[in-house]
Amino acid sequence: MRIKIINPNTTLSMTAKIGAAARAVAGPGTEVLAVSPASGPATIEGHYDEAMACLGLLEEVRKGESEGVDAYVIACFGDPGLDAAREIARGPVLGVAEAAMRSASYLATGFSVVTTLQRTVVIAEHLVDKYGVRGQCRRVRACELPVAALEDDGAAAYQTILAECQRALAEDGCGAIVLGCAGMADLCERLQAALGVPVIDGVVAATATAEALLRAGLRTSKRGDYAPPRPKAYKGLVCPFAPG
Amino acid sequence: MRIKIINPNTTLSMTAKIGAAARAVAGPGTEVLAVSPASGPATIEGHYDEAMACLGLLEEVRKGESEGVDAYVIACFGDPGLDAAREIARGPVLGVAEAAMRSASYLATGFSVVTTLQRTVVIAEHLVDKYGVRGQCRRVRACELPVAALEDDGAAAYQTILAECQRALAEDGCGAIVLGCAGMADLCERLQAALGVPVIDGVVAATATAEALLRAGLRTSKRGDYAPPRPKAYKGLVCPFAPG
Amino acid sequence: MRIKIINPNTTLSMTAKIGAAARAVAGPGTEVLAVSPASGPATIEGHYDEAMACLGLLEEVRKGESEGVDAYVIACFGDPGLDAAREIARGPVLGVAEAAMRSASYLATGFSVVTTLQRTVVIAEHLVDKYGVRGQCRRVRACELPVAALEDDGAAAYQTILAECQRALAEDGCGAIVLGCAGMADLCERLQAALGVPVIDGVVAATATAEALLRAGLRTSKRGDYAPPRPKAYKGLVCPFAPG
Amino acid sequence: MRIKIINPNTTLSMTAKIGAAARAVAGPGTEVLAVSPASGPATIEGHYDEAMACLGLLEEVRKGESEGVDAYVIACFGDPGLDAAREIARGPVLGVAEAAMRSASYLATGFSVVTTLQRTVVIAEHLVDKYGVRGQCRRVRACELPVAALEDDGAAAYQTILAECQRALAEDGCGAIVLGCAGMADLCERLQAALGVPVIDGVVAATATAEALLRAGLRTSKRGDYAPPRPKAYKGLVCPFAPG
Amino acid sequence: MRIKIINPNTTLSMTAKIGAAARAVAGPGTEVLAVSPASGPATIEGHYDEAMACLGLLEEVRKGESEGVDAYVIACFGDPGLDAAREIARGPVLGVAEAAMRSASYLATGFSVVTTLQRTVVIAEHLVDKYGVRGQCRRVRACELPVAALEDDGAAAYQTILAECQRALAEDGCGAIVLGCAGMADLCERLQAALGVPVIDGVVAATATAEALLRAGLRTSKRGDYAPPRPKAYKGLVCPFAPG
Amino acid sequence: MRIKIINPNTTLSMTAKIGAAARAVAGPGTEVLAVSPASGPATIEGHYDEAMACLGLLEEVRKGESEGVDAYVIACFGDPGLDAAREIARGPVLGVAEAAMRSASYLATGFSVVTTLQRTVVIAEHLVDKYGVRGQCRRVRACELPVAALEDDGAAAYQTILAECQRALAEDGCGAIVLGCAGMADLCERLQAALGVPVIDGVVAATATAEALLRAGLRTSKRGDYAPPRPKAYKGLVCPFAPG
Repeated sequence: MRIKIINPNTTLSMTAKIGAAARAVAGPGTEVLAVSPASGPATIEGHYDEAMACLGLLEEVRKGESEGVDAYVIACFGDPGLDAAREIARGPVLGVAEAAMRSASYLATGFSVVTTLQRTVVIAEHLVDKYGVRGQCRRVRACELPVAALEDDGAAAYQTILAECQRALAEDGCGAIVLGCAGMADLCERLQAALGVPVIDGVVAATATAEALLRAGLRTSKRGDYAPPRPKAYKGLVCPFAPG
Repeated sequence: MRIKIINPNTTLSMTAKIGAAARAVAGPGTEVLAVSPASGPATIEGHYDEAMACLGLLEEVRKGESEGVDAYVIACFGDPGLDAAREIARGPVLGVAEAAMRSASYLATGFSVVTTLQRTVVIAEHLVDKYGVRGQCRRVRACELPVAALEDDGAAAYQTILAECQRALAEDGCGAIVLGCAGMADLCERLQAALGVPVIDGVVAATATAEALLRAGLRTSKRGDYAPPRPKAYKGLVCPFAPG
Repeated sequence: MRIKIINPNTTLSMTAKIGAAARAVAGPGTEVLAVSPASGPATIEGHYDEAMACLGLLEEVRKGESEGVDAYVIACFGDPGLDAAREIARGPVLGVAEAAMRSASYLATGFSVVTTLQRTVVIAEHLVDKYGVRGQCRRVRACELPVAALEDDGAAAYQTILAECQRALAEDGCGAIVLGCAGMADLCERLQAALGVPVIDGVVAATATAEALLRAGLRTSKRGDYAPPRPKAYKGLVCPFAPG
Repeated sequence: MRIKIINPNTTLSMTAKIGAAARAVAGPGTEVLAVSPASGPATIEGHYDEAMACLGLLEEVRKGESEGVDAYVIACFGDPGLDAAREIARGPVLGVAEAAMRSASYLATGFSVVTTLQRTVVIAEHLVDKYGVRGQCRRVRACELPVAALEDDGAAAYQTILAECQRALAEDGCGAIVLGCAGMADLCERLQAALGVPVIDGVVAATATAEALLRAGLRTSKRGDYAPPRPKAYKGLVCPFAPG
Repeated sequence: MRIKIINPNTTLSMTAKIGAAARAVAGPGTEVLAVSPASGPATIEGHYDEAMACLGLLEEVRKGESEGVDAYVIACFGDPGLDAAREIARGPVLGVAEAAMRSASYLATGFSVVTTLQRTVVIAEHLVDKYGVRGQCRRVRACELPVAALEDDGAAAYQTILAECQRALAEDGCGAIVLGCAGMADLCERLQAALGVPVIDGVVAATATAEALLRAGLRTSKRGDYAPPRPKAYKGLVCPFAPG
Repeated sequence: MRIKIINPNTTLSMTAKIGAAARAVAGPGTEVLAVSPASGPATIEGHYDEAMACLGLLEEVRKGESEGVDAYVIACFGDPGLDAAREIARGPVLGVAEAAMRSASYLATGFSVVTTLQRTVVIAEHLVDKYGVRGQCRRVRACELPVAALEDDGAAAYQTILAECQRALAEDGCGAIVLGCAGMADLCERLQAALGVPVIDGVVAATATAEALLRAGLRTSKRGDYAPPRPKAYKGLVCPFAPG
């Protein structure tokens, strides 16, 4: 099977890390494609960045449909464009926040999220509500690291994140940690070893879950709001992306 | 004061109707600009259309900031791009669904939403949860009218919508109707007269509320996640829209 | 249009302040009546005071109906008698807590309420649930000021409230402040200037929103539980207030 | 022990029925006082009636404190004035809706409420939320009986209520019925015999629960918002009821 | 009437204390049986202990049905086996957590729970949600006392619990305390005297409430999921417990 | 890896079907053990059956720990004993209801559950709340088939279930079906083909998800309430199952 990981952040070093994490968890017969769109923000750190990332991200899903892609992972913790992507994909589409938070729910009765900037905390909290894990999510914590800092100085970033995870375990009454940025994928294993509790990276969780859904013969429902978009004219810059 | 109504549907006859509804409610000193973006879907009828509408819509907000616009209304019942728009606007930005549902809450302990296609019902229901009106919203009803039908044959559309509103009053235990599409703005007054209960059109509600917020001296908070986007590079098609 | 602001606290200096705040926000063609009922507590600081305030408050609504009043504002943060008032009014009736909290929701993804006494915090929290803003309201904070202190020594009160607002911004992750007492109406502008975030006073928010609803042609629904009370006999002291 | 049942409806035949129901359930050493206030609506069928009932009702609590009353029951399904009454009572104060709905929760995983007029359904639904029984309450049903009809023609009322209860059992998936008006107290036993499921009358449930709390040595907390009202001046008609 | 208190902890000194507390609250005509099952954990301190306690506990209910028992109390704060017990009992079955938390809701708008070990906090929090008291329960607090410590050194345990209750009152904004372990039943009265707020022990609350329900003529609904279990074969160790 | 599927129903033909479904979805390197406990009900159709199933079920987990089992699936839609099992297992433990409902959430914005007997509907609804999928679960439907009927006459059962699924799609506004009994595992593929929407069987979903978690290097958290049970004495029949 072929799973396409789309990192809507257009920082390619981050995409490479994400691809490596996905490949490490994928089963033997699974091909992992890890890409960044041709269009989009270098990093995604707010509502505006998210909205602007959708065009490129959705184009990668559209291309995937003719590349024989079986499932997609959107590798940004705000899960931008998720519902839209499901309209145009036949196979499952998973967001990394959704997959990480649901996976954590199998492993502990409470988890905390450790993310990058404070301003993205609200985005994660809205997803906590959307995905119905308010009862499990003890707290969403920021460590005031810009996404780019994860690329620039991984070692410093690791120490900052580790410290925040330790505070989470000490103060939040949680039994697991969810990493709140796809760019932390390469730190997951070390953090889990250091902390002694499950540390869930969404890229890994989403890739493994996408495989699981495919193996179970499950695809996106085409009955209801995930049916293909109604054909219509689009105008201006988005004209080439009109549903046919 | 200057209020810009952005209809992210790029069907100009719809924009004209919306502008007329907004102007009719605006106070004497208020200038209403009603526009459709240069880029976007002819009509918005699903998650994908919404995502694709954001780019043009946000560009209109960005332009508005240099046009002396004091407040914005996003005239599509899914409230696409609302949080993103608030990051780049100084003044208030209102979605029509948000304004309509909150306005209805002042007038009745229960309202029903009457919208276009069944596939958009989920979008409205998610907004019901987001805006905390689950206790007031008795039901979201579709009348299986495509958005374009509101333009093509207004008379037929009126009858279909009226019938659905009557079913809502008979079956849902509601005391008010919220119109679930900005393209119904021109039908609001007639429906209210025919039904004898408050009928709330979001364009009217949002325009009037935006004026109210401005008169109260209130602007979008720039502390937290509505602070201006962090400056960064954007790539490809969205490159011109990078936050400066 | 004519809007009647009813301050159920029978402290007239407070009513004067409230009237001034309402007049400052009202549009040119709007007449603001600001009154305290003939009957009621000097200040409202608990469930009992609220219940005892209703009789006088509702009588002011009843009189308003024959005075050509178009809309009403109940100027006490517990929104006492709100549903009852809507039964006997044709036009919109707004509570200041309701209007303030809903207005704040347009401006920030999170707000905190700063109110007077700790014992009224529960009242505000119940309204947070009733109005569906649990997801936006980060915290309700008391500064242990009796309502009368707002009249007696405004300068000291201002400092106390300012300090609590600053704690809210520092600790609660909120982007806006809602003032939890109508008697703080005169401090709103100074607080907003000092804090640099939206500070929402309910008197201002409710007056402006009432005007907006009127301009939008919206009135209280008379279908359902806001229909006029059923005619019946009342006994004893309340006999003169029986619905006719 | 001495329990005072206050029927805020000032229809004395109803108070007599309520008193009989309370006495039938009370233990041997318990004295039941059943009264209607000197002031208030003949029947309570809406928000306005409720608000107007509070003055008389609270006066009965105030008098009770000097009559050696140990606990109070507010015998109207909207539980008017409940929080206010708790401020001025030392012993427990129970509303019949609260007691009925909580008692039902011990006996079935789902119950339906059968009440009088459709316009009071919203009042009951708000209490369902306030008391946290949304998960248990399958539906609130009206049988369009005015409260007075329960007094005027008990036999006809019985048949109407029975039929609605049967519909509830057939359609709602409930295992118990809560009677939504204190004036139905005399029908409870017959309905339970006819229906074969628990039928909970609030007067009976509240009286029995009040006794239980007293026997357990429990009183209203005087820490927090149920502390006695702060002393202050009251003006006009309510002047005699000012907290001392 | 005959009420059977089943302490699923098989520590008999604890059962004796529990029986004494129940007898002290029971009315004159009420016989209290206090037992521990023949089978089960010495103390219950987690999900596994709870699951393992059910067999013995349910057997005591089954025996009760032929002993003329009118109502049951499950005396362990996790309310293990409650729904199952209701299937096989004719009379009411009450859990101590359920009864304590609902009783507290009549007395204060907020309570905190003080329980034994941190690992049982999640169990109590799940019950807070199940019983719909999330709005009332300010916090669940552990004092890191194993259940056995309540038996071994009551004086030390008392001091530890008292201190935690005091912290709850100081920090949680609560007006009442719920004791989170049936083994604290003997400390309730002293704690209440020391703290000056209602302190609710579940054994006392459940016994008194069971009596109240019986006096009100109420039994477990046999319509729906509390109907007797369907007859069927059981295998192995549980074979003797198959529903007949 | 080695995954143990425990069917707590002790009907071996059902266990065989469940094992086949699990093996069909498992990856090449995965060994599936499918067992029924030595002790337990022939079928599980209520709270009592569930409680009585736990002993045997948990013993199978305990044995699994010394058999090198990496993950467990509890193959009964009520997810009995799930939290208890997680205390004694090192690897992930998944309930079929949990896995099915979470998997459905990736594929459609709304699903309906089709289960066996009406009396088990409440059990499923409680899980809907526990797992936070109230927003996705449109309805839980029973088709009044006893579990044994799935074994006795599969063809008739298929028709009954198919008809109920068709009603769900026609009436509930759902885009996917969750099968509400592990004994329906063999019908899943045919139903999905017939209905044209995702049909999720929990055995398949849980087995695939368990593999995914293992491949992602995730295990049950041992910090908090899933830590191993505290060592203590057990009495009577459960004595051999005491935590060591």
